[in-house]
Amino acid sequence: MISRPSNSGTATPHEGFSTEQYFETQPPPPDLDARIQPARDFVERWNRVEGKKVVVVTSGGTTVPLEANTVRFLDNFSAGTRGSTSAEYLLSAGYAVIFLHRQHSLKPFSRHYSHSLNPFLDLLHLPEPGASRQDISVTNQDANHLLPVLKAYKEAQTAGTLLQMDFNTVNDYLWILREMARVMGVLGRRGMFYLAAAVSDFFLPLDRMAEHKIQSVKGNLVLEMDQVPKVLRPLVQEWLPEAYIVSFKLETEQALLIPKAQKALTRYGHQAVVANDLHKRKHEVCLVEKTPRSGQEADSTSEFTETWLKLEQLANRKTSSGSTPEIEELIIDELLKRHEVWLKG
Amino acid sequence: MISRPSNSGTATPHEGFSTEQYFETQPPPPDLDARIQPARDFVERWNRVEGKKVVVVTSGGTTVPLEANTVRFLDNFSAGTRGSTSAEYLLSAGYAVIFLHRQHSLKPFSRHYSHSLNPFLDLLHLPEPGASRQDISVTNQDANHLLPVLKAYKEAQTAGTLLQMDFNTVNDYLWILREMARVMGVLGRRGMFYLAAAVSDFFLPLDRMAEHKIQSVKGNLVLEMDQVPKVLRPLVQEWLPEAYIVSFKLETEQALLIPKAQKALTRYGHQAVVANDLHKRKHEVCLVEKTPRSGQEADSTSEFTETWLKLEQLANRKTSSGSTPEIEELIIDELLKRHEVWLKG
Repeated sequence: MISRPSNSGTATPHEGFSTEQYFETQPPPPDLDARIQPARDFVERWNRVEGKKVVVVTSGGTTVPLEANTVRFLDNFSAGTRGSTSAEYLLSAGYAVIFLHRQHSLKPFSRHYSHSLNPFLDLLHLPEPGASRQDISVTNQDANHLLPVLKAYKEAQTAGTLLQMDFNTVNDYLWILREMARVMGVLGRRGMFYLAAAVSDFFLPLDRMAEHKIQSVKGNLVLEMDQVPKVLRPLVQEWLPEAYIVSFKLETEQALLIPKAQKALTRYGHQAVVANDLHKRKHEVCLVEKTPRSGQEADSTSEFTETWLKLEQLANRKTSSGSTPEIEELIIDELLKRHEVWLKG
Repeated sequence: MISRPSNSGTATPHEGFSTEQYFETQPPPPDLDARIQPARDFVERWNRVEGKKVVVVTSGGTTVPLEANTVRFLDNFSAGTRGSTSAEYLLSAGYAVIFLHRQHSLKPFSRHYSHSLNPFLDLLHLPEPGASRQDISVTNQDANHLLPVLKAYKEAQTAGTLLQMDFNTVNDYLWILREMARVMGVLGRRGMFYLAAAVSDFFLPLDRMAEHKIQSVKGNLVLEMDQVPKVLRPLVQEWLPEAYIVSFKLETEQALLIPKAQKALTRYGHQAVVANDLHKRKHEVCLVEKTPRSGQEADSTSEFTETWLKLEQLANRKTSSGSTPEIEELIIDELLKRHEVWLKG
């Protein structure tokens, strides 16, 4: 039984946490400062390079532990494909990328060799008998695919353009995100947030969390969770008024998709929403934005612009690359143009 | 708020599902038969090899989807380390292994190169300029560790001793487990089940599952879940009375650990429980068994035997291997001996 009691119901003690209340009552991860330090150094370094743009990509789902000694947790469906793929295209578009991801979700570059779908051990061949140990080799056919991936990976390592940070719980995520807003502030309009992580809408406040593994002998399990505050509002309006901010909206009901994306733009005032349907997300997304207003056009344009991006557009565009086309390439192409415009003020 | 209402409460419509009721009311995964077929072939093949033992290793956590078009789910903490590591030692002990694992959890061999902790791309070096593409190489130091892993992986592939099958939801798991019991029956005492998966104690019956993503605008989320029936009982007593069956008990409260393991043995009548505390599980476990009864000793032995296994025992045993000692080696050593005794009837 899934139900949402009205606030007059027996189970709802208050109106929900505001962002301020959230951070006042829920403790930060104990090592927060140490975890943020590499990001401070990274941003400081790239801030000195004129015109360099820096993006924070969030990726993967967040967990909601049901127990302080966690055995069970609520999770959001997300392998991290969107975020890890986008991070690669952002790197190749010249961004310095902070990849803030769910622990063990897909990462840029290594995502091509998921242990389940394309195990890397299958690429490797044992040395011939008598050969020296380092002669573990990659077959020609596999090398064709591996080489550009490996090259891009090593380039990002050498150039220091990719910083990876991880989170696990929704509480980690919220605290780290707020700190990252502070860190990114110095970049002004050169900063971008690309919020692809699937963040839980609900959480279990610390004071109601069980200490140990919930025992199952006593009957059904009943859980009540509070709404996670919408931190996108302070992120856009208070913490980072100058950054270019992109959020994501994932729905399973097509009819809700565009209205909910528009509502988010109205509510939070950020720059773009990538709207995607769970079942079509790998070949079709819609970039939803507020239509820029000018005096003359005021009555001829609608309030929102929809830019539909479809995988087949990419198939037409390039024919000789050999790599599998990915819709994230189109998303990043579009955002790159818009961020350039945003940079000019 | 986490609470377990008594059955007289408003929220509990019935006494809980029996195993029979579960399988009568919850539909099987649509492709169940096709997913089981490789296991039928595998068992049939190894059944023809005299004395060959076959083990089903279950590994990783199960999910409980909250929506039919799944965005949110309840999960159990498990990376699949215990199962994937044990599978390697079972292979090297001569077993044919069916590795039934949570999708994207750790797998035998590739687990050594987790994308987070030991990314395989770091092992690989680009060819020198001008070299042919296949000259992607592994450094000597990395090859020392990689080579035995790669060898064992290729050996299992060549010999056909490892079959990997996956599951995602607790419903997948339960249906597949029941089918696997049927498939393994022909092996008699040569069959082993090593039930290392972290199976949810709760599930959401299909008729109460939301169709689409639960919307969060209307207040708190309230969930009520039913208990998953304890299928270990029919597995041991009806489906597979001859197999050697090992279950796992993970707790966070040390005081509960041994009593709960003993209770499971009494309740289900299987051969062994590996009891482990969440925080000590990588260096200390306890193998709990019913003490074999003989007339003379009846009053001198207690009902249960505890065999404590600690990582330091392994450190003393072998000094020159170079590989990191793993407690799973001790667990499998102990179980191998016991399965040999069990085989003799």
